[in-house]
Amino acid sequence: MVNGLWQDQISLDDRAVHYGDGLFETMRVVDGKIPLLPRHIDRLEEGAARLLFTTDRSQITDMLNAYLQEVPEKSNLTLKLIASRGSSQRGYRPIVGQPATIAIKASTFVSRVNKAQREQGVSARLCNSRLGRSSLLAGLTPLNRLEQVLAQAEWNDPHIFEGLMLDSDDYLVEGTVSNLFFVLAGQLCTPQLIDCGVKGVMREELIEFFTESTGIRPVEGLFKLGALAEAKEVFVCNSSFGAVPLVSCENATWLPGNFVRRAQEHINVLYRCPEV
Amino acid sequence: MVNGLWQDQISLDDRAVHYGDGLFETMRVVDGKIPLLPRHIDRLEEGAARLLFTTDRSQITDMLNAYLQEVPEKSNLTLKLIASRGSSQRGYRPIVGQPATIAIKASTFVSRVNKAQREQGVSARLCNSRLGRSSLLAGLTPLNRLEQVLAQAEWNDPHIFEGLMLDSDDYLVEGTVSNLFFVLAGQLCTPQLIDCGVKGVMREELIEFFTESTGIRPVEGLFKLGALAEAKEVFVCNSSFGAVPLVSCENATWLPGNFVRRAQEHINVLYRCPEV
Repeated sequence: MVNGLWQDQISLDDRAVHYGDGLFETMRVVDGKIPLLPRHIDRLEEGAARLLFTTDRSQITDMLNAYLQEVPEKSNLTLKLIASRGSSQRGYRPIVGQPATIAIKASTFVSRVNKAQREQGVSARLCNSRLGRSSLLAGLTPLNRLEQVLAQAEWNDPHIFEGLMLDSDDYLVEGTVSNLFFVLAGQLCTPQLIDCGVKGVMREELIEFFTESTGIRPVEGLFKLGALAEAKEVFVCNSSFGAVPLVSCENATWLPGNFVRRAQEHINVLYRCPEV
Repeated sequence: MVNGLWQDQISLDDRAVHYGDGLFETMRVVDGKIPLLPRHIDRLEEGAARLLFTTDRSQITDMLNAYLQEVPEKSNLTLKLIASRGSSQRGYRPIVGQPATIAIKASTFVSRVNKAQREQGVSARLCNSRLGRSSLLAGLTPLNRLEQVLAQAEWNDPHIFEGLMLDSDDYLVEGTVSNLFFVLAGQLCTPQLIDCGVKGVMREELIEFFTESTGIRPVEGLFKLGALAEAKEVFVCNSSFGAVPLVSCENATWLPGNFVRRAQEHINVLYRCPEV
């Protein structure tokens, strides 16, 4: 669906095609509802404002509802929304405030994590591909994803669940499709994502959950790889697979701990299902 | 035209739309010919190899010929070619070696530079938007162009011809659509583009031209903004407008010099026209 019309093509003049000039949201649909919808729309609005184009919250909600209305089986879906700046004449210069072109497409949700992995944990690797530090785009979900594409091209071993990425100054950032949390001296920590990285909606949900339930806000800071080696517990999260303990990355190993269990319990309630 | 078929839309599943997962070439057409075609195709092939997909040189040449055959007025065109990784299932991981999807579109060439500007020079500004250092993509023309889009959004004054960009470590890189040359102690210099930036085909053409005609290869190095203040002559170039002297950027001023005149003469011959 593009701008409310049922079509599976987009104009060759669209700036998403030429420049990756837009944003995306990948949303989990449970029983026809999007549990984290307000966070997705908030991030989209913040991103559009920073990229100097315009999204209309109620219009996007209407489009999502219209789309979900027509999908026959909506109990468990992954819904991808692309908000592009739309078409323009040649050249990079944007028309400031141009209304976004909204494309929506759903696919059946397929969990990448089974019960055993969720309980006992998964393994990660360290990617050679680095994230460029560009505060212009930091925190957002721009359609410029070549760094992630090249990072995932580095491995094909199904036993490696995720690749962790550093930035060009050796700071820990995130996984290729997930955010990273770890426990240092009893304190839950996560990279700050001021210079690069995506502020995932599940990351934001868990920061708020732990702040409210423990009274202590997780530390968002600058961490190098050594911090992970010292961590007592490590987990990755996103809105699709929830939260999963990491038990190894290269030579470091960890055991699942209490923080990931509490995150998993919270996500189970959020997604109204015994198992995410 | 997409993969040889006359169409002005592209699949919503194309990875150019989702990830900017591809490369582009913007080519000047003069009298039905593309003077710098071998350099464009070389860069495209190098880029595709680094991004782990496949382009077919003879197939692309055939498509360009077929396209130009059908264009009624081909004396002066700008031709944009997009080589995307094509469609795929959801997820960043690419199928290594996937053949590219090739989209081609021409527009009438409109010179951004008039005779007076070419002779007397133009003004530039320094952009606040910085280029993230990512050796993964350095030198290439990836479809990830949001940094350039945001840089060009910074100004709209028609008296400012170009915006110069620094990287996140304060090194000089390039203009938003051009490469930068300057003369330090009699020696022609240009940023090395190992950490970011586009190795423009006109930059490569001029490096080769000056190397062959003077016996001295221009210096490709790391330069900070102070180098420009000390420069005796500065010019920008690309395959569209050729080479144009810069006479000011913020508080620094320069006069057009011998190097840009020799570059302009060379480009006039290359483009077989009295004035590029």
